[in-house]
Amino acid sequence: MSGELRVLPISGVPELEEGDDLAALLAQAAAFEANDVLVVAQKAVSKVEGRVVSLEGIEPSDRARELAGGDDARRLEVVLRESTEIVRSRPPLVIAETRHGFVCASAGVDASNAKGPGTLVLLPLDPDASARRLREGIRELAGVEVGVVVSDSFGRAWRRGTTDVALGVAGIAPLLDLKGRRDSMGYVLHATEIAVADEIAGAAELVMGKTEGIPAAIVRGLTVAGDGSGSDLVMPRERDLFR
Amino acid sequence: MSGELRVLPISGVPELEEGDDLAALLAQAAAFEANDVLVVAQKAVSKVEGRVVSLEGIEPSDRARELAGGDDARRLEVVLRESTEIVRSRPPLVIAETRHGFVCASAGVDASNAKGPGTLVLLPLDPDASARRLREGIRELAGVEVGVVVSDSFGRAWRRGTTDVALGVAGIAPLLDLKGRRDSMGYVLHATEIAVADEIAGAAELVMGKTEGIPAAIVRGLTVAGDGSGSDLVMPRERDLFR
Repeated sequence: MSGELRVLPISGVPELEEGDDLAALLAQAAAFEANDVLVVAQKAVSKVEGRVVSLEGIEPSDRARELAGGDDARRLEVVLRESTEIVRSRPPLVIAETRHGFVCASAGVDASNAKGPGTLVLLPLDPDASARRLREGIRELAGVEVGVVVSDSFGRAWRRGTTDVALGVAGIAPLLDLKGRRDSMGYVLHATEIAVADEIAGAAELVMGKTEGIPAAIVRGLTVAGDGSGSDLVMPRERDLFR
Repeated sequence: MSGELRVLPISGVPELEEGDDLAALLAQAAAFEANDVLVVAQKAVSKVEGRVVSLEGIEPSDRARELAGGDDARRLEVVLRESTEIVRSRPPLVIAETRHGFVCASAGVDASNAKGPGTLVLLPLDPDASARRLREGIRELAGVEVGVVVSDSFGRAWRRGTTDVALGVAGIAPLLDLKGRRDSMGYVLHATEIAVADEIAGAAELVMGKTEGIPAAIVRGLTVAGDGSGSDLVMPRERDLFR
């Protein structure tokens, strides 16, 4: 894990539409090297996968109206449909658990960067599968093995601001387990797991921004190749002190 | 925020002792450039500031014994002394709020990498002041203005693994406020604040690791110069849905 790290924004990707070949567009825009980690913003993935819904025709439930406060209850209805549990709410703010087990604002449903007024972007149904498809696409088109992270901006308990985290991964180990390793004084470290996939997502966010049309970045110089799932980063309910 | 980012580990720093001139040791070990962000691990800062305590002679209270389960109650006593509030506990695990307002495991008290058996490392008393001293030291010794982040590894609610976050900052704006900016479709983004200082800390962690004697890293290529405090990253209690 030592050595220099480079984080390279991938620009020049056109506005995305459902059905677009995202791997091909990224392979065209960037020169991948073996062991690169490709970080792709969830919204880019969701758009090509058609995970976009229109507010038109959405019939809000009473619960949605209640959670909306004075806000658009149709949006809250979509949030409810994407949620398995409402963890906290202060209308119109909702922190919800998604089908995948992620706990985040609005169950990951987002209006910004959407494809027009009155449309919402939902999380991918299976972010690991999305990451695997991109990994396979880059392998085919660029001839190199890359790791892939599908990232999104999440708020955190107790801290202001969002940081990007990993929703889905392919070809990398999302957690680095230091258990049994010794520190610089020779003491065995206990129970230290580092969420490297989340730190990779955050590093990529620093060059992607939110408003500049950069849907992806390459993180180069890591040795994180391995296996795993974005759901490895979800705290199992029985160990979670906050659910 | 576009353009390439580089993350450079700073190695060759000797084992640190109270009173060491950390800025001088870092300036010796690395070639700083203007607008670099220097990220320094909290433990390195705490050691040179003498924020190390011995377990010997610590008399645990009943509350400490209770929180310890079967673990060393003296450690829990030190954690209690560093805490203003216990947010959650499952003995011997304690999530506490520190004087600074940070919510983290063991109020930031850590045994690993400590200066010997039976010693604990505490958080710096004023991490912003620590960051400012390093910034001033680098300015004097290397003749360049750098931003500084004092970082630590925090666990998160709902997610496994730690990510590094910023405890103190100097010369950078820790939050990037996108309010009023427009996204790629021209829509105004609402209420989006990015915790760039935390993402910078996480990016640095990827090259610092926990066991390899790399107490600091340089993040190069950002435009985050500005003012602020590590406490800007603490969610104000009245806005916090989780306290």
